[in-house]
Amino acid sequence: MTKITDLKGYCYPLTPEGKSSIVGGFPWHYGTEYLNIAYRANPDEIAKWLPEPLELGPQPDVAYVAFSKWWSIWENGEAMPNINPGRTQYQEAAIWVGCSYKGTPGQICLPIWVNKDFSMARGWFMGFAKKLGEINITDYNPYNPMMSEIGIGTKMTGVVSANGEKLMQGSIEIDRKIDRTELPYPMGLPVFHIRHFPSLVPGAKPSVLELVKLGATNWQWDPNVWAGQGDLKFFPSEIEEHMPLAPKEIIGAYRFRNGYTFPGAEVLHDWLAE
Amino acid sequence: MTKITDLKGYCYPLTPEGKSSIVGGFPWHYGTEYLNIAYRANPDEIAKWLPEPLELGPQPDVAYVAFSKWWSIWENGEAMPNINPGRTQYQEAAIWVGCSYKGTPGQICLPIWVNKDFSMARGWFMGFAKKLGEINITDYNPYNPMMSEIGIGTKMTGVVSANGEKLMQGSIEIDRKIDRTELPYPMGLPVFHIRHFPSLVPGAKPSVLELVKLGATNWQWDPNVWAGQGDLKFFPSEIEEHMPLAPKEIIGAYRFRNGYTFPGAEVLHDWLAE
Amino acid sequence: MTKITDLKGYCYPLTPEGKSSIVGGFPWHYGTEYLNIAYRANPDEIAKWLPEPLELGPQPDVAYVAFSKWWSIWENGEAMPNINPGRTQYQEAAIWVGCSYKGTPGQICLPIWVNKDFSMARGWFMGFAKKLGEINITDYNPYNPMMSEIGIGTKMTGVVSANGEKLMQGSIEIDRKIDRTELPYPMGLPVFHIRHFPSLVPGAKPSVLELVKLGATNWQWDPNVWAGQGDLKFFPSEIEEHMPLAPKEIIGAYRFRNGYTFPGAEVLHDWLAE
Amino acid sequence: MTKITDLKGYCYPLTPEGKSSIVGGFPWHYGTEYLNIAYRANPDEIAKWLPEPLELGPQPDVAYVAFSKWWSIWENGEAMPNINPGRTQYQEAAIWVGCSYKGTPGQICLPIWVNKDFSMARGWFMGFAKKLGEINITDYNPYNPMMSEIGIGTKMTGVVSANGEKLMQGSIEIDRKIDRTELPYPMGLPVFHIRHFPSLVPGAKPSVLELVKLGATNWQWDPNVWAGQGDLKFFPSEIEEHMPLAPKEIIGAYRFRNGYTFPGAEVLHDWLAE
Repeated sequence: MTKITDLKGYCYPLTPEGKSSIVGGFPWHYGTEYLNIAYRANPDEIAKWLPEPLELGPQPDVAYVAFSKWWSIWENGEAMPNINPGRTQYQEAAIWVGCSYKGTPGQICLPIWVNKDFSMARGWFMGFAKKLGEINITDYNPYNPMMSEIGIGTKMTGVVSANGEKLMQGSIEIDRKIDRTELPYPMGLPVFHIRHFPSLVPGAKPSVLELVKLGATNWQWDPNVWAGQGDLKFFPSEIEEHMPLAPKEIIGAYRFRNGYTFPGAEVLHDWLAE
Repeated sequence: MTKITDLKGYCYPLTPEGKSSIVGGFPWHYGTEYLNIAYRANPDEIAKWLPEPLELGPQPDVAYVAFSKWWSIWENGEAMPNINPGRTQYQEAAIWVGCSYKGTPGQICLPIWVNKDFSMARGWFMGFAKKLGEINITDYNPYNPMMSEIGIGTKMTGVVSANGEKLMQGSIEIDRKIDRTELPYPMGLPVFHIRHFPSLVPGAKPSVLELVKLGATNWQWDPNVWAGQGDLKFFPSEIEEHMPLAPKEIIGAYRFRNGYTFPGAEVLHDWLAE
Repeated sequence: MTKITDLKGYCYPLTPEGKSSIVGGFPWHYGTEYLNIAYRANPDEIAKWLPEPLELGPQPDVAYVAFSKWWSIWENGEAMPNINPGRTQYQEAAIWVGCSYKGTPGQICLPIWVNKDFSMARGWFMGFAKKLGEINITDYNPYNPMMSEIGIGTKMTGVVSANGEKLMQGSIEIDRKIDRTELPYPMGLPVFHIRHFPSLVPGAKPSVLELVKLGATNWQWDPNVWAGQGDLKFFPSEIEEHMPLAPKEIIGAYRFRNGYTFPGAEVLHDWLAE
Repeated sequence: MTKITDLKGYCYPLTPEGKSSIVGGFPWHYGTEYLNIAYRANPDEIAKWLPEPLELGPQPDVAYVAFSKWWSIWENGEAMPNINPGRTQYQEAAIWVGCSYKGTPGQICLPIWVNKDFSMARGWFMGFAKKLGEINITDYNPYNPMMSEIGIGTKMTGVVSANGEKLMQGSIEIDRKIDRTELPYPMGLPVFHIRHFPSLVPGAKPSVLELVKLGATNWQWDPNVWAGQGDLKFFPSEIEEHMPLAPKEIIGAYRFRNGYTFPGAEVLHDWLAE
């Protein structure tokens, strides 16, 4: 008889051959292209999203919105770009805030939208509260007679909409190159996320509710890290809750590419064990 | 300081106000429109998808594909059809097979595709291995001069594609009205599902791996239940695993509408406790 | 050698077999489901859209927005609902205003969005300036335990978004049944449209620029025509021009189904011959 | 009173302010990224698509499929990448064949799919029989630890699906760099297209039916032009007519970027004047 261990796959669907999971198992390998706008929000509002043992970060009002493009494959999934290219590309828009865990500064992603199902599912495993949306980001082809290579003077804009509502729009007007170490807090800090999976039993606690620290290794960086003037607007929605995190002041905007491997995570705290 | 219990929401996103979860908590209320084609598959292939303590059902080779339209709202979510109508409508295509649990005949959904993110997420909570796809189903407006009300002689077709590949197509040519009690096995039987949520810890078992029985109450039925000749084809895919469940023989096709409430589920078995 | 008359098809693509045109030739047969909100706009703004020999209509400030669902097939296309069902269904949101031609009251469709390519193309042939968008309209399945049949007290909402921007949202709260003859001006009046096709020659006039009257025959009506309180909002856009036509006062809202055949059109005026 | 010349816009919608046309007027400026697979088809089938005065080209059986990404702006539309970035980006899959006009070798695009409405509309003006589909093309980010810069050994694949059916898939395995002058016939030859716009008058000829030669100036080339082994498959469809043009033999595959300006076209022949 079939045993549960005969069903294969990192995640749904669990199948006899394990070849159709919406994502294969980690490590997961990513390449990115970011348009980030760092800003100050209301720290009291940020605090409402950070449950103990998480706390506000050392710069409690600082947040950033990241409009990004992603190229991803899972371990042993190098064939996928040529089997079904769409399964290896997606776009994302996310609000990140600083936080800290037992004195260690970090960051956490709050509302976030992506445009592919596999990214939404993988996000849920990693504590990203992903929902589907449309993300559009300026892109230039330097061979278009009216376009140039990205550089000083380039303007780029990211927009995210979901369920017919525009939610956020941000832009950069590049004025300088910086070193990646100059990217502002909390970019690059460890990611502390809340993993959650609900129960179907009436009145029960969630089936999963844990604080994790996401790993990231094997960093690769495009040496061209651009910075400039930023602009960021949030738009009201009938069904989203991003508005309390809206920008009060823009810190700056950044445009860069990098890549890394996700090797797994460490469980820091289990709220179900409290 | 914010406590974990201050973050509200049945599922992601967990937020200060709990107003933007991708779905609100159950009970969930559904209205449906089904185009189902019952068929015989290879029972040895079906068996590979049914892990102990699940077993084959009393008619071990019988399965059906359901192409369906859904109208859903969550408890206290009666305003959503007028806030964001798209959040209350979706389409689905699914392969169902008979099974049994400790001698009780039931059914389980195997590969399944939907066209909205909220349905995919809610499906994952309920043990439906949902991925996104395009589902199209014949529909008629009797006021179109070349169309009629659905009835004897009507032909209707459902098609599902995902990631650019057509996966399944099925049709009915209606030849009679039946009573809903005549819908064939395993339609209408209790649903036994495998709930799963992966871990992010290298080498760890999944965080959730349990067998549940999904509840269903408050059944409403359109008295017009149509039956007829069926047709069903599966198409090969580079990334899906439905082909081994392909039809060997068509039993019949059925077209009907109903509705019900999902009140929650009962956990029958926890594989992590083995 | 192949002659131009060997290429078949009502429209692109023109092909050896003529089987893949984006739409087949007329007559075109339609079934509809409308949620219309009649309102008063600024007549000076309406006038700007009506070029001689079109003029303002007898109620020069009256307009309506129609959120609608369509079931369409072309002549001899009765098989399409079962070949590729998606090719026979679409949704639309449109702004209509009254006008007149040589003393005959009529109506003309101004900005309009649909969600399928074949409807956009066919619209262009008919003088509808269609662009693609997302249209969502409340729908109810009476078998959902929390839903009812449409009737007095039912509230329904239509929303249209395009390119990530919400553009219009309107609703009805049904309070009575009416006769179809009570639907307000300019609903049901002859349609006078501007057909246009640009030239690719620098400095040239358009290749087509004519005023047509669209035919409509074989009307079928659902006797249930609902009316009620209406609500309608227009939202600003960076790239659309609907705002000057925004509602100043709501007249009422209407929900009904009908169907008809488009047999062709009559050319009333050729601006290129001026 | 409003005159027809008061309505502005290169194409629909024609409006008081002329700011919402689906595309602005030419010149149109393009940047491209191509994955082309040159192949031999059945010349008798190709001939069926070339109406006099077009004729077969000097290599009558040669065709190519182009899977491509486009960055486009219209004259004076340089702000659009930052107003609504999605309006400046699209993907395309097209079948091109060689042809000739009065002894001049050229090329013509036969079936073609794009993923944006503005590209479909502009295509129709230019004689491209565009319909909407999903196009996915391999892309690599060299900062993904498992990806590299494009170069010798790189494999890339393009896929096009429409209305739920996969239609064509092709790939390149790069083995050398070439000079752009080595790109095979008929790439780069003048484009001879059939512009068509149907009439709505029963029994009438089309309103537009002319042979044009599309201009192209201001060519910009990425010096890295890659060539390699190609692969190309066509898949059967219930509603498309590409199969008779299916590959019999692959010539080679090419991956390159360029850009140019479309300054307008020349009308070579008017079939309506015959």
